[in-house]
Amino acid sequence: MDAYNELIGIYDEISTIGDISSLLGWDQNTYMPRKAAAGRGGQSAFLSKLVHRKVTDPRVGYLLDRLEGEDLSGTRAAVVREIRRIYKRKTSVPEELEAEIARSEPLSVQAWAEAKQKKDFSIFAPNLEHMLELKKKVAEKVGYPDIPYDAMLEEYEPYTRTAQVREVLERLKKRLVPVIERISEAEGQRIDISGKFPREAQESFCRRILVDIGYDFERGRLDTTEHPFTIGTGDDTRITTHFYENDLRPALFSCIHEGGHALYEQGFLKENMHTPLGEACSLGIHESQSRMWENLIGRSLPFWKRYYPDLQSAFPGLSALPLEDFYQTVNRVRPSLIRIEADEVTYSMHILIRFELEIEIFNGRLDVREIPQAWNEGYEKYLGVVVENDGVGCLQDIHWSFGSFGYFPTYTLGNLYAAQFFDAMKKDIDVEASIERGEFGPILTWLRSNIHEKGKLYPASELVRVVTGKELDESHFIDHLRNKFGAIYGIDL
Amino acid sequence: MDAYNELIGIYDEISTIGDISSLLGWDQNTYMPRKAAAGRGGQSAFLSKLVHRKVTDPRVGYLLDRLEGEDLSGTRAAVVREIRRIYKRKTSVPEELEAEIARSEPLSVQAWAEAKQKKDFSIFAPNLEHMLELKKKVAEKVGYPDIPYDAMLEEYEPYTRTAQVREVLERLKKRLVPVIERISEAEGQRIDISGKFPREAQESFCRRILVDIGYDFERGRLDTTEHPFTIGTGDDTRITTHFYENDLRPALFSCIHEGGHALYEQGFLKENMHTPLGEACSLGIHESQSRMWENLIGRSLPFWKRYYPDLQSAFPGLSALPLEDFYQTVNRVRPSLIRIEADEVTYSMHILIRFELEIEIFNGRLDVREIPQAWNEGYEKYLGVVVENDGVGCLQDIHWSFGSFGYFPTYTLGNLYAAQFFDAMKKDIDVEASIERGEFGPILTWLRSNIHEKGKLYPASELVRVVTGKELDESHFIDHLRNKFGAIYGIDL
Repeated sequence: MDAYNELIGIYDEISTIGDISSLLGWDQNTYMPRKAAAGRGGQSAFLSKLVHRKVTDPRVGYLLDRLEGEDLSGTRAAVVREIRRIYKRKTSVPEELEAEIARSEPLSVQAWAEAKQKKDFSIFAPNLEHMLELKKKVAEKVGYPDIPYDAMLEEYEPYTRTAQVREVLERLKKRLVPVIERISEAEGQRIDISGKFPREAQESFCRRILVDIGYDFERGRLDTTEHPFTIGTGDDTRITTHFYENDLRPALFSCIHEGGHALYEQGFLKENMHTPLGEACSLGIHESQSRMWENLIGRSLPFWKRYYPDLQSAFPGLSALPLEDFYQTVNRVRPSLIRIEADEVTYSMHILIRFELEIEIFNGRLDVREIPQAWNEGYEKYLGVVVENDGVGCLQDIHWSFGSFGYFPTYTLGNLYAAQFFDAMKKDIDVEASIERGEFGPILTWLRSNIHEKGKLYPASELVRVVTGKELDESHFIDHLRNKFGAIYGIDL
Repeated sequence: MDAYNELIGIYDEISTIGDISSLLGWDQNTYMPRKAAAGRGGQSAFLSKLVHRKVTDPRVGYLLDRLEGEDLSGTRAAVVREIRRIYKRKTSVPEELEAEIARSEPLSVQAWAEAKQKKDFSIFAPNLEHMLELKKKVAEKVGYPDIPYDAMLEEYEPYTRTAQVREVLERLKKRLVPVIERISEAEGQRIDISGKFPREAQESFCRRILVDIGYDFERGRLDTTEHPFTIGTGDDTRITTHFYENDLRPALFSCIHEGGHALYEQGFLKENMHTPLGEACSLGIHESQSRMWENLIGRSLPFWKRYYPDLQSAFPGLSALPLEDFYQTVNRVRPSLIRIEADEVTYSMHILIRFELEIEIFNGRLDVREIPQAWNEGYEKYLGVVVENDGVGCLQDIHWSFGSFGYFPTYTLGNLYAAQFFDAMKKDIDVEASIERGEFGPILTWLRSNIHEKGKLYPASELVRVVTGKELDESHFIDHLRNKFGAIYGIDL
């Protein structure tokens, strides 16, 4: 057996363990009995250790060395590049450090949950300090081109440097702040949705939309959880949502959002399964798929021209609400405190605030204890809202509690990638007509061949270049916001 | 670390992998999307291989050698005995033979399914011949005290020889045949249940019964599948059932049956989890728990004295049917073709027929091609029923298709163990009063301390001796049948 084949054989096992872990995670969040949690923890920890051992196996290093300098084809080169990247990263972090992080995590998450519930950052601060310290050690071990934060970002957005992200997000901020200000000043419409929306009717409508956009229920399923998510890949890609009977929007848009993630996972080529080419390019690219379906398609006027009559039939309470009004209720812009409830326009500001804080923390220019103040100032400055307490402020997100620094920017990168891809798509196919007919085949086909089927063939920045012919550029997103919300609010943005 | 602790550390991992495999199996039968089957196959195969590697690790052999002759306490000695047994069995079968069985299995199951559907044994015969050949090789590698079939039985009923089982089942047969004949001759009552039994009402009644008998829903759950089963252990023991709206009996009694299995699994001591002491003694003992709850408790008159009024409230269609009649409808004896539909009295004859055939096949005295004829003769002779075709005859069960020879007798051993345990329990507590009050605490407590908490401390035959003070004796079961069905049919059995 040659080195390449042996290597992908090992990776196949690593990937299989990953699939098993995913299922365990899915079950944990959907159907697992309450008291099975401790046992599940042991099972997941066992699989993590197993993956770590396999990834860092000296044999992997030996095979990678043997392949060094070999003239591999494009796809093989990408596979080897990715395995090398992971191997390097995982072998560079000492086992004791990994173990210490694993040990600290549940305590940190617990402290965070308590702090959030009690609205008291000081309960969480010592754990966050410790986690930060450990993650800084990871950064030192892993190495970084410019600043330690690079090593964090790299975990979620490989081959992307902080400086690049910062540049584009800085430009975005400059252009976004006035847009938000203008919209906030504009006289918002006051119409809102109210009434009772039976769960069954919501579910059946959501399932229908999912089928229409191309989600394959024979290779996935829809369940309910506290927070919606997508898990799994290929032939077993499952999504979840949460139904609220007083409002149909959360389930509707979370289904389309998770559906977008799932279409990506279901869109990898079968022959690439269990190789890096059967995996998402990056978290940002993953998010571009969910946000494109949710915002650029699912919250568009053509979409509701097609579906609103059906929605009205399913929910007769909407019969008196005209299409235009409904369209406005799903596109209301309102600066607010909570990221996950934010609208399409202000969402990125929530991210920008976090991104800047993370960099400051990692650069050692901001102390953990100073986070609440810096957070609150950011929200007041950029969104004009006053943070009443840390529970709805810097304690709202779980990410930092398990050491996920560098994750937040991928959400906004997703918005930017999505808008740029969408504009590229419009050059090739009549996107609006597709949406208005509820025939998403051409859109999905375009996404499949341009993005999904590529997997990790290219780094994200290169994928953007290959697909759109240029570097990542926030203009597409900004132009989209200006056009859409200018029309909605009747102002010139 | 001493040898014992290292050994149970390894066993802990083996057991953890087993728990993960169980969850995969549960998901496969409940919620897995259709097209995820191939991927799931790969995941399960990976885990099987991993378990095999860990069980047969030379380090295990080395540790077992080091512990050889050491003066271990009772529980430690049992743990080491069990690990040694598995180690010996698994290391004695060559990997190529295991692999060949694993490869043949899906094809064999597929051929069986096709043959059953087409009612044509000849489609399945070549696969069965091959599987039998492979299993005979396993028997030769594993070794056996008397006959090759011993090596098959040992997998499910450790430390039990064919000769022992045969002796007790022969006696059982001699005493059971006239009982069945007498009942068949008796004028059976003609009352039956009919009507519509809404699924929701059935489910809520079943859940209530499960809670009453002591099943802990915080450490388990109830779902629906084509065939009911119990999976998992300890804090994650899940059961399934199947609801038929035209008859409430299948769900009701399968829930109590699976509940009995689950109470066993939930009853292992926490401190023994992931050791052989936190595992079922044998399949026969496992089955004794399900059958005791289903038949000796759930199909008893005291049970329905307690629950029938509630059942009538839940299903008003039953209001005109008196308790005694209902009791008869859940205890109808009728010799029939299908094992899984058989009643408490005739069930064991289905097993005896299979058991005798298996031994003949393994002894080489019966050719695979001769199975249908031998099967049909057995059914005519012992149950007086004519097998119309192989689909409802020798092709009805899946077991042989994946090489599970030696499994069937454990069902009947379960009946015998159950009756003998039940009589022992009656000496300690007022069982009938407990049942009639629907207060099962004393019964469960007795089962916990006498059987569940013992795990694999003793081999099954010794457990029977320890709990009941004597060897396995079919008289308890026969006496139970005579008393119960004599009263129901108004005859002297």
